[in-house]
Amino acid sequence: MKKMEVMTLAMKPNILILGGGYGGIVTATKLTKELGVNEVNITLVSKHEYHYQTTWLHEPAAGTLDVDRARMPINSLIDENKVKFIQGEAEQVHPEEKKVSLANGEQLEYDYLVVSVGAIPETFGVGGVFEHSFNKWTVNGARELKEHTEYMFAKYNNDPRDEYVTFIVAGAGFTGIEYIGELSERVPELCKKYDVPLNKVKMYVIEAAPSALPGFDPELVEYAMNLLENRGVEFKINTPISEVTAEGVVLKGGEEIKSETVIWATGVRGNPIIEKSGFENMRARVKVDKDLRAPGHEDVFIIGDCALIINEEINRPYPPTAQIAIQQGETVAKNLAALIKGGQLQEFKPDIKGTVASLGGKEAIGVVGDKKLFGSSASFMKKMIDNRSLWILGGTGLVLKKGKNPF
Amino acid sequence: MKKMEVMTLAMKPNILILGGGYGGIVTATKLTKELGVNEVNITLVSKHEYHYQTTWLHEPAAGTLDVDRARMPINSLIDENKVKFIQGEAEQVHPEEKKVSLANGEQLEYDYLVVSVGAIPETFGVGGVFEHSFNKWTVNGARELKEHTEYMFAKYNNDPRDEYVTFIVAGAGFTGIEYIGELSERVPELCKKYDVPLNKVKMYVIEAAPSALPGFDPELVEYAMNLLENRGVEFKINTPISEVTAEGVVLKGGEEIKSETVIWATGVRGNPIIEKSGFENMRARVKVDKDLRAPGHEDVFIIGDCALIINEEINRPYPPTAQIAIQQGETVAKNLAALIKGGQLQEFKPDIKGTVASLGGKEAIGVVGDKKLFGSSASFMKKMIDNRSLWILGGTGLVLKKGKNPF
Repeated sequence: MKKMEVMTLAMKPNILILGGGYGGIVTATKLTKELGVNEVNITLVSKHEYHYQTTWLHEPAAGTLDVDRARMPINSLIDENKVKFIQGEAEQVHPEEKKVSLANGEQLEYDYLVVSVGAIPETFGVGGVFEHSFNKWTVNGARELKEHTEYMFAKYNNDPRDEYVTFIVAGAGFTGIEYIGELSERVPELCKKYDVPLNKVKMYVIEAAPSALPGFDPELVEYAMNLLENRGVEFKINTPISEVTAEGVVLKGGEEIKSETVIWATGVRGNPIIEKSGFENMRARVKVDKDLRAPGHEDVFIIGDCALIINEEINRPYPPTAQIAIQQGETVAKNLAALIKGGQLQEFKPDIKGTVASLGGKEAIGVVGDKKLFGSSASFMKKMIDNRSLWILGGTGLVLKKGKNPF
Repeated sequence: MKKMEVMTLAMKPNILILGGGYGGIVTATKLTKELGVNEVNITLVSKHEYHYQTTWLHEPAAGTLDVDRARMPINSLIDENKVKFIQGEAEQVHPEEKKVSLANGEQLEYDYLVVSVGAIPETFGVGGVFEHSFNKWTVNGARELKEHTEYMFAKYNNDPRDEYVTFIVAGAGFTGIEYIGELSERVPELCKKYDVPLNKVKMYVIEAAPSALPGFDPELVEYAMNLLENRGVEFKINTPISEVTAEGVVLKGGEEIKSETVIWATGVRGNPIIEKSGFENMRARVKVDKDLRAPGHEDVFIIGDCALIINEEINRPYPPTAQIAIQQGETVAKNLAALIKGGQLQEFKPDIKGTVASLGGKEAIGVVGDKKLFGSSASFMKKMIDNRSLWILGGTGLVLKKGKNPF
């Protein structure tokens, strides 16, 4: 009997999930509903013992939400009787050996691997980004930016330099716009707290492309820009940055804007692990098969920011979003069950329910279905979307604990 | 009738008070009780539109008290029908011309002058203090130190350098000990907030003299040091600092301690205005006559940090304290009334009611009368002393608004 058990254990396939973000957590929790503990061993590896809501981080980064509202312990999301959690940092996949090495030197074996390791900032070759800008959309990164911002306001009256209260956001995409929305909403409060005259504070959003929020409906873009301009934000569109320095940014053409706070939000590329592990890739993103496996690797699924999937309607890649990563986690869980228990693998098709960008306070813009939303109705929808992602991760309990009141 | 009024106005002496600290505010408020608006014109000049409790600032500097609890608008303390308030920075006294020039170029005339312009840090010739340390015990200075400290904790997990969580207090006098008391009390909370392991945080108090709290009862000093050491503070006594650098401090002998946060608390010297104005002085402090006038200047009173008075029992100067500045303000108000209405000028004799140093939380040490106090009874007394200074400044209303609950 004992021998039998050992054999069963040895024969159970090992599923290894890398990453505790949206894709990894959803894969893990859905897998436990598809496969029992007697059928499979599931291991989740994540750098932190907590999961965080990446799409919420513009709020704690600007100081409008406590960062702890945007994170939750991983062991509150997974059932540790069914999923083994290892806190560690994946460094390289060795697909031929079916192993993953961690930063601490440990190696983990797998039969099936799910790579959901997220993104890093894309610099587009601009120098100084990693040295001189805030670019980490993580819990630690958001906390650092928030405290840096308060520190700059606190310094101003001891040494009133313009660069202390000049804030530059590089990139007028989703992240840049949502961040400046929160910051511009909070600036009057910061001015009051630190006795800084409001007219001393400068906020810039600098974008290389010919419009803010490229791809978004022009009427909504105009609404957002007007609103932010009324809060004191200055847009410099069609204006590439040539360098980030210790003093601020240098624009193409040579103009310099001095600032102690440059926020880099021009978009992301995949995690360098992808390149290091030898998967065929473009900017560390793998053009995955329709069932989300890496081409030529029957036992490796890649999802989230490192997966490249094409929107065939416009023949361009889908932007990497939480919405898609969550849906991919659900598909991968089903496809792993099919591989292990037998059955047909599903093709992944994103179901884009809507896109809403918050602009701080009770303001937002968005498209849901084919309906445009502005102001408080968009803001309401944004909060509902945020709550929905909590519900998928942790059910009603998590929504009650961390959710946002839309009313 | 109208002409008479103009004449009366012209003949009323102008009393000019420089400084909105303890001495200046008490002088102004007590004066209005000694002399009526038809007898005198009173003008108060202060850099800020608020008064602050300098002796409380170690708390907001460490983040254990909201800085707004330690300040109050000057117009809430003085009766603006009786005292004219000018927000400005006194730059030089011209005693021969009976004028004071302000930083904005304006000049104010006086018949009687009260100089209560506070202190600046004493560096004892150590280089780098003003460039690389936190040394301003002001509202703005406390705010900057507090936000800097939080910023250092927020940076640590992005780049775990020891110097971010190493805190060096130069000086184990009253200010240094009270500050490290608050910081050491708060560190566990900061560690929790920013996910920093407690054992990574280092706190040093470095003192050139052969003991901490020189002049204090040795039993109380030992109590304080034991308590602080138990909270993780390391004392380096008998250890002069030879330089403060951008990287930390260099000790005499060459040892270097790296830190992004050096707090300079080795004591103060008088305000440079004293030297600039040609008063005979020692380190910008004037050895005032017994009635608190500057020697050779019948119309100039100097009080607070810029006044040097000798404790004849030990033949050494009294340390400049809030307690003494407040008592001097009361004496100066009476002496001005005597000068204007006729009468005998009083000699100033400090009435030292007690000295209590807070150590954070419910801990303190002190001497009241000839009784030594430890722990919560000393802490109770400290809060009562803080409330008493509020009561002198603004009566019961101010105690209720800003006071500290000792229970």
